[in-house]
Amino acid sequence: MSVYTKVTEAELGDWLKAHSVGSLVELKPIAAGIENTNYFVTTTHGHYVLTLFERLPGKDLPFYLGLMAHLARHGIPCPSPIADRANRLLSELNGKPAALVTRLPGAVVMQPSVAQCAQVGALLADMHVAGESYGGTLANPRGPSWWRETAPQVLPFLDEPRRRLLKDELAFQSRYRLEDLPRGPVHADLFRDNVLFDGDRIGGVVDFYFAGVDAWLFDVAVTVNDWCVHADGELDVARTDALLRAYHRARPFTEIEHGAWPAMLRAASLRFWLSRLYDFHLPRRGELVHAHDPEHFRRILALRIRDERSLPWVD
Amino acid sequence: MSVYTKVTEAELGDWLKAHSVGSLVELKPIAAGIENTNYFVTTTHGHYVLTLFERLPGKDLPFYLGLMAHLARHGIPCPSPIADRANRLLSELNGKPAALVTRLPGAVVMQPSVAQCAQVGALLADMHVAGESYGGTLANPRGPSWWRETAPQVLPFLDEPRRRLLKDELAFQSRYRLEDLPRGPVHADLFRDNVLFDGDRIGGVVDFYFAGVDAWLFDVAVTVNDWCVHADGELDVARTDALLRAYHRARPFTEIEHGAWPAMLRAASLRFWLSRLYDFHLPRRGELVHAHDPEHFRRILALRIRDERSLPWVD
Repeated sequence: MSVYTKVTEAELGDWLKAHSVGSLVELKPIAAGIENTNYFVTTTHGHYVLTLFERLPGKDLPFYLGLMAHLARHGIPCPSPIADRANRLLSELNGKPAALVTRLPGAVVMQPSVAQCAQVGALLADMHVAGESYGGTLANPRGPSWWRETAPQVLPFLDEPRRRLLKDELAFQSRYRLEDLPRGPVHADLFRDNVLFDGDRIGGVVDFYFAGVDAWLFDVAVTVNDWCVHADGELDVARTDALLRAYHRARPFTEIEHGAWPAMLRAASLRFWLSRLYDFHLPRRGELVHAHDPEHFRRILALRIRDERSLPWVD
Repeated sequence: MSVYTKVTEAELGDWLKAHSVGSLVELKPIAAGIENTNYFVTTTHGHYVLTLFERLPGKDLPFYLGLMAHLARHGIPCPSPIADRANRLLSELNGKPAALVTRLPGAVVMQPSVAQCAQVGALLADMHVAGESYGGTLANPRGPSWWRETAPQVLPFLDEPRRRLLKDELAFQSRYRLEDLPRGPVHADLFRDNVLFDGDRIGGVVDFYFAGVDAWLFDVAVTVNDWCVHADGELDVARTDALLRAYHRARPFTEIEHGAWPAMLRAASLRFWLSRLYDFHLPRRGELVHAHDPEHFRRILALRIRDERSLPWVD
């Protein structure tokens, strides 16, 4: 259960007076999510999600909310933040920064088909292209500098082969200049549980709270590493192929991206291996219950290194 | 049939490449509407309405589209214009200014209940309040100066009692200073055919192409004159009462508005009597088939004058 800050109907009713969404019909806490407090909110105008930000740096919130508003304005099915009467996307509720966003239809698909992977690829490309005209800037908070800070903290918990793999991969990645790749706002966490399918089509992409500005190809690699793998971490060639081709149709890959693809799949594996190691070995109070097994992404990293010369691409 | 400019799937497919709404699934002309060409558009991302502007002054279009975008951002269920990759809400298609907006759920209700009138009143107030922070300006294109221009053109077609009523009403209205009333962006055409009910709730408010900046109370009067009348133009007290009270709860009326209410109901009657007289007696080529009977609003005007001292209000 992850409602850190309780909100009563009376408190929300007061807060909603500064908005134009009609009057409150229902307020329901959402158990999922570990970073924020979330509620489903129904008003006479529609269905929303209320988020109270518990831990994210306050200075970064305008980037996330502005990005969602920008993408929604461009036709990307993502939560659209609702401005209040003072035209702000963010205001305080019960002592926390809070935002109201539209609730999207659909449900998570944990066993995606080839066709669904193609849809995710096309949408990811559309998000990248639509994001090009977004003015906000925020470095990917889980990028290379975060890797370098975090690795020394988890190394003491690892056995020798894992220490070696982590150190070698950091050394390998440090030789790549991500800055040369086409870049812009990226979701950076487009796992299966952040996409809602509404029947055959994508009803929504949610949870932009790891977004930042980074190489688009990094976002593709994060997505492929979750949507297109078997349980053991091996790539499913048909799903990978469908996702990449659909992406390529909407936003053609460049030659430099082709060259960077193997390193980028490794970078995306490293990022999640590291964060899971951190959450597992250095859990915040009461949070161990949520920790994912770090081994899954250690295996994925090892497999991407093994397959470096035989990875699917769009040629 | 009101498709003035034909758009093929191939032409639209090309145009959509400058947007991020996925690929075209279906394109269907809409027969209703006489000012613009409209199509229903379905893409892999969702349902939209494509509008090609045939007659509206190009300089006014950014006001309308910006207002819709602003209201949608504030949680008003209205069409949300989709920005293209250059971040524009408007671009050219087949030689016409064109916009793509979200399609809203629901259907028109021609026999509204008391409860539905209350919902319309609450939504209208929410629209007014949300519009306060909109920066666009455009004088109501069917305001007093338009009345003064239009009256001389239709007077020759009227019999003596109608000439007298029109002249007297213009003289009466000229003594009122609308500028003293609380004002902001108004829809100015919130008739029953511009509100979609989705089950019990309002799914959408559409057709903002008569919007402008004017007295909020004028918008209330236009709305009451359509939603709360019997076929003979008499006010239905229960529906009027429900609409006004719901509006008042969301945006309390001021004392000056109370005083102006009878004159405002007359102004709203005059505006539509005049435009219907104009469309009836001076139709544009091929447009007579759409002309509404001007007599309906002549009767409404006469009734509002008759009932000046006994009109429903929220006290």
